[in-house]
Amino acid sequence: MIYLDNAACTRLDEQVLEAMKPYFFDTYAVATSEFGYSMGIDAKEGLERAREGIASKLGANSEEIIFTSSDTESSNTALKGVAWALKEKKGKHIVVLNIEDFPVLNTAKALQKQGFDVTFLDVDAEGFADLEGLKKVITKETVLVSIQQGNQEIGTVQDLKVISEICEEKDVLLHTDATHSFTRLPLNVKEIPVDLITVSAHTIHGPRGIGALYIRKNTPINKFMDGGFQEFNMRAGVENIPGAVGFAKAVDLVTEEETRKIEAMRDRVIEKALSEISDVTLNGSREKRLPQNANLTFHYVEGESVTLHMDMKGFAVSTGSACFSRSLEASHVIRGIGGDHERAHGSVRFTFGRYNRMEDADAAIDAMNEIVTRLREISPLARK
Amino acid sequence: MIYLDNAACTRLDEQVLEAMKPYFFDTYAVATSEFGYSMGIDAKEGLERAREGIASKLGANSEEIIFTSSDTESSNTALKGVAWALKEKKGKHIVVLNIEDFPVLNTAKALQKQGFDVTFLDVDAEGFADLEGLKKVITKETVLVSIQQGNQEIGTVQDLKVISEICEEKDVLLHTDATHSFTRLPLNVKEIPVDLITVSAHTIHGPRGIGALYIRKNTPINKFMDGGFQEFNMRAGVENIPGAVGFAKAVDLVTEEETRKIEAMRDRVIEKALSEISDVTLNGSREKRLPQNANLTFHYVEGESVTLHMDMKGFAVSTGSACFSRSLEASHVIRGIGGDHERAHGSVRFTFGRYNRMEDADAAIDAMNEIVTRLREISPLARK
Repeated sequence: MIYLDNAACTRLDEQVLEAMKPYFFDTYAVATSEFGYSMGIDAKEGLERAREGIASKLGANSEEIIFTSSDTESSNTALKGVAWALKEKKGKHIVVLNIEDFPVLNTAKALQKQGFDVTFLDVDAEGFADLEGLKKVITKETVLVSIQQGNQEIGTVQDLKVISEICEEKDVLLHTDATHSFTRLPLNVKEIPVDLITVSAHTIHGPRGIGALYIRKNTPINKFMDGGFQEFNMRAGVENIPGAVGFAKAVDLVTEEETRKIEAMRDRVIEKALSEISDVTLNGSREKRLPQNANLTFHYVEGESVTLHMDMKGFAVSTGSACFSRSLEASHVIRGIGGDHERAHGSVRFTFGRYNRMEDADAAIDAMNEIVTRLREISPLARK
Repeated sequence: MIYLDNAACTRLDEQVLEAMKPYFFDTYAVATSEFGYSMGIDAKEGLERAREGIASKLGANSEEIIFTSSDTESSNTALKGVAWALKEKKGKHIVVLNIEDFPVLNTAKALQKQGFDVTFLDVDAEGFADLEGLKKVITKETVLVSIQQGNQEIGTVQDLKVISEICEEKDVLLHTDATHSFTRLPLNVKEIPVDLITVSAHTIHGPRGIGALYIRKNTPINKFMDGGFQEFNMRAGVENIPGAVGFAKAVDLVTEEETRKIEAMRDRVIEKALSEISDVTLNGSREKRLPQNANLTFHYVEGESVTLHMDMKGFAVSTGSACFSRSLEASHVIRGIGGDHERAHGSVRFTFGRYNRMEDADAAIDAMNEIVTRLREISPLARK
């Protein structure tokens, strides 16, 4: 089986597990025992080295990074934490992009139910945020803007530099969900003054159950996870040190060379599909897109049929986002870029990771060509 | 080094890692792709088997278990989820025991800041909840009572049967934090009608970063972690399947025989300390206490000095709770049972796990005897 879906990035790297092992079997103490004994101190050092690893990748200071259980928790913390901290001091308005992934989108909707006013900012046909619109919707009551770096489904990469300038000028905090872009695209908080950044290990061959949140120093934010005093008293819970160490190792293992290799596979799939198969639309931008993401609509066929036939041929691909596959609802991302239900249902996403090879990309499009041709022959929707 | 502190339970069992490995390297797909391909379905099956493992240990149905990142998250979900769900329908009053661990205690305090009325229920000198007091404080506005099964520090085990009957009679929901008792003490929801139960893997040689929450069917509860539709749409975030599988394996590995062995070490430490060292007080109950917990106050000495000297002699023990070691504040648990600061500071906790042996227990108390005697010789507080 050749995995060109989410699983292309979720397989754990053996070296990550090796890095975690000492913290399973040798240095397994709770890290918080500052006045305790040697193993507790060693455990804490392991945790702090991992924190430095994540911080330096973002150009941040260690004290600005807290570990969480996932990108979902990081985004819950960012949005709810800032909203609650500022609702009395500043206002109850937040802005999120309408094609955000669920952690941001549905946290914003949860805040809406709690009485916050949420603007779901539009995107253009390629998925880029409406920047003129952004300038207009920010008011004195706006406490947070949340705009992702790269889209989970169509791969569009936002211009965070310009977005951060708008937010700075309007004096409003900016959060970005970098779950799908972290390590694959540059993001340095010294150059781009984002205030909060969500990252996760599970998209870069790291362990499940560990994420992090960058919180710029002095950002007003309430605690989301209450309990103990861990993570600078910003996130309670016994520290998942093996997870944090594994996350830092996963970050270390991503190289520029690998990312270029992944990007070349993406480009091959896009170019081959567009040139060899008829009635194909690229979803998202051709230029500014995540290195690991290709998303194409094969018109007159259903994405679900395609993924099943691809599965039988030994290729795993996705239609819509992984979560959407469950609900069979048309993707809010494809609809966000102006696509209709037909375009959403015919969309197929290819994801590339460390274990993929260029031959896989070629073979996948050859298989797609055969499947799409056959499905169109029997489809009542197809142009004959 | 002999670990008789939290680390006695946090070392991962090699068999747990072996159980997790297939989900790192072979079945690493996202579980939610119901309409997806074979690996996604296998991953989901692994997750559901793990869920059944946790459920059956509690006498629950699988659909009543959601996986979380920790006991902290489980308790946040239980308390905030129920409080938010019922605040308009029923009222804004909750009751928690005053010696609860931080996840419950500080979540209750966070709810207090959000306008909830919280009663911190007293305990007696051994740490047992004031049951007559409980009957009196519950009103028609009470939405939740949260009383732990076994105390994290002094090991006192509450009578959940009687507590659940009081809650049932008063028609109020009951949550219990079973982080330190799960698998070591029986808890079956068919026999004891608790509505919500917090459990965690990290106290039974399972992985960090995974916990679970039992939620009785039809319990009114809001989502705490917003985002995707995972865990019966009750907890968002890509499922930590290796973690869940490791948790279920850790539960499987706990045997009645092992628990009795651990209990025998606990009893040896308590009896040896009380008979061989002068001016020692047992904190908590002699009869109804966690099998793995011994907590003793060695009067006229400081817990911090004792732990440091024990460390030099090759024994890891704790003073107060692990978190308190950080703040050097006197333990709220010892103060809760009527102890003064001196009693709190002189308290030493011993925890026993799979990798301890009876000789360790003996040697630890011999070492304690020597250290306590020496410290008392130089202490201005000591009776000469």
